[in-house]
Amino acid sequence: MTNDAHARPVGDEGEELLYDPDVPTPTHAERARTLVTSIGTGTLCTIAKEPKGFPYGSFVTLALDDGNAVLLISELAEHTKNLRADARGSLLVAEGGKEDPLANGRVTLLGNCKNIAEGEENERARRSYLGSHPNAAYYVDYKDFSFWKLQVESVRYIGGYGRMSWVSRDDWFAAEPDPIAPHARSIMDHMNNDHAPRMVDYCKAFTKARDTTAASMTAVDRYGFEMSALTSKGPRPIRLTFSQLIATPEDARREMAALAKQARGLLAKS
Amino acid sequence: MTNDAHARPVGDEGEELLYDPDVPTPTHAERARTLVTSIGTGTLCTIAKEPKGFPYGSFVTLALDDGNAVLLISELAEHTKNLRADARGSLLVAEGGKEDPLANGRVTLLGNCKNIAEGEENERARRSYLGSHPNAAYYVDYKDFSFWKLQVESVRYIGGYGRMSWVSRDDWFAAEPDPIAPHARSIMDHMNNDHAPRMVDYCKAFTKARDTTAASMTAVDRYGFEMSALTSKGPRPIRLTFSQLIATPEDARREMAALAKQARGLLAKS
Repeated sequence: MTNDAHARPVGDEGEELLYDPDVPTPTHAERARTLVTSIGTGTLCTIAKEPKGFPYGSFVTLALDDGNAVLLISELAEHTKNLRADARGSLLVAEGGKEDPLANGRVTLLGNCKNIAEGEENERARRSYLGSHPNAAYYVDYKDFSFWKLQVESVRYIGGYGRMSWVSRDDWFAAEPDPIAPHARSIMDHMNNDHAPRMVDYCKAFTKARDTTAASMTAVDRYGFEMSALTSKGPRPIRLTFSQLIATPEDARREMAALAKQARGLLAKS
Repeated sequence: MTNDAHARPVGDEGEELLYDPDVPTPTHAERARTLVTSIGTGTLCTIAKEPKGFPYGSFVTLALDDGNAVLLISELAEHTKNLRADARGSLLVAEGGKEDPLANGRVTLLGNCKNIAEGEENERARRSYLGSHPNAAYYVDYKDFSFWKLQVESVRYIGGYGRMSWVSRDDWFAAEPDPIAPHARSIMDHMNNDHAPRMVDYCKAFTKARDTTAASMTAVDRYGFEMSALTSKGPRPIRLTFSQLIATPEDARREMAALAKQARGLLAKS
């Protein structure tokens, strides 16, 4: 599995790493599955009928069904006409949010697309798609709309600068989206607003950033969390692990509290 | 030129139009040029080397240079390797913002891509690109990065539901981006926050929505502006024109004030 324990947070090039380099981190396959699961829109790339042979990009809404992408598209749309003539396609799904657009994560899924108009597979696609896009209920039964599935053969993951790889098909299908992802923003806000001193303790007690004067949380996932620690040498990235895999915001709260207690104990002794 | 005076704002299907159907509106070419000009990111679609022949979507930053798209990309990136083998490409540029993602506008530019590593064309590309992406200055001279141009041959415009067309190459290159677009959000906020009663006057005086009780501005461009008027039959779309093409927020202010005076005069007589 491709792991980016060594594709460290930006900012520490050529600098000593202040935390354990072997701290568990999500694999690229997990990061990619999480990203696509959390974002319901993307660019569908098809081979155009007109102008013939050109790669054609169009905006679509999508959902994942066990790792394959489900689309609900109209026979009237260019991309559907293109897929009827050539099944090859890809989907680019990109995060937004960061000020530098190239620092955002993105995933390209490549594979053949097939129409799934009937049967059990159609029922599954419908459930997956409407689960992500409930507002589509009003046109899901329009005659010109039907479900298509992009059957994933290749996965390209780019997590920002210097964090990229081809994810193997097996890793993609085995990976589970991070259960913490939907809650990450609120966990980070809570920690940054209400527990800033606690994070300074984490940095002082568990890392080499012993002169940390302020810290803010920049990421959290099932394995652990990342902070930007303000040290005498400027802001430095830190990653710490939880004592076990977590799955809920309550798990995160419990782990953060246990770490705080442990940190206070260590700091009292030093 | 494709004009969508008749692709009316959503909400009036089967209902009487309450405003002049011949009110000037931006053409699809103008809407497309404006959209791509205001958004500096998109999906580049290329023909993949691996898996061979598949359409490959990747995230890029871009700028327009006289209607052609300029990219600054690395030889290390998949899309650049793809373009070295097959020059055919497209760029999907999509708006965000609306709650229903399919209601947002998007544009696909199709054409051949060429590397412009040297000469006057390179200087122009550099100026256009760095004008839109000043932060790229720190890697623009990295050895593996160079400028590429997608020479636009075909343009597909989708402005949301029921507003779409192929824009002719001539119309695309002749169209100018709307000078009001960068100011539209602040003009609308100002009108909605500070001049709501004035907009009710516009609706009562200039349209068939004589029973309007509230109105909010939903769009503004060089030709005119759009409102959602709350009538006894619910919210209805309205479009009004300015007395002349406008180019600045100050022009908009003057036109809005003149229309308000004119509306009060008409309403006083009725």
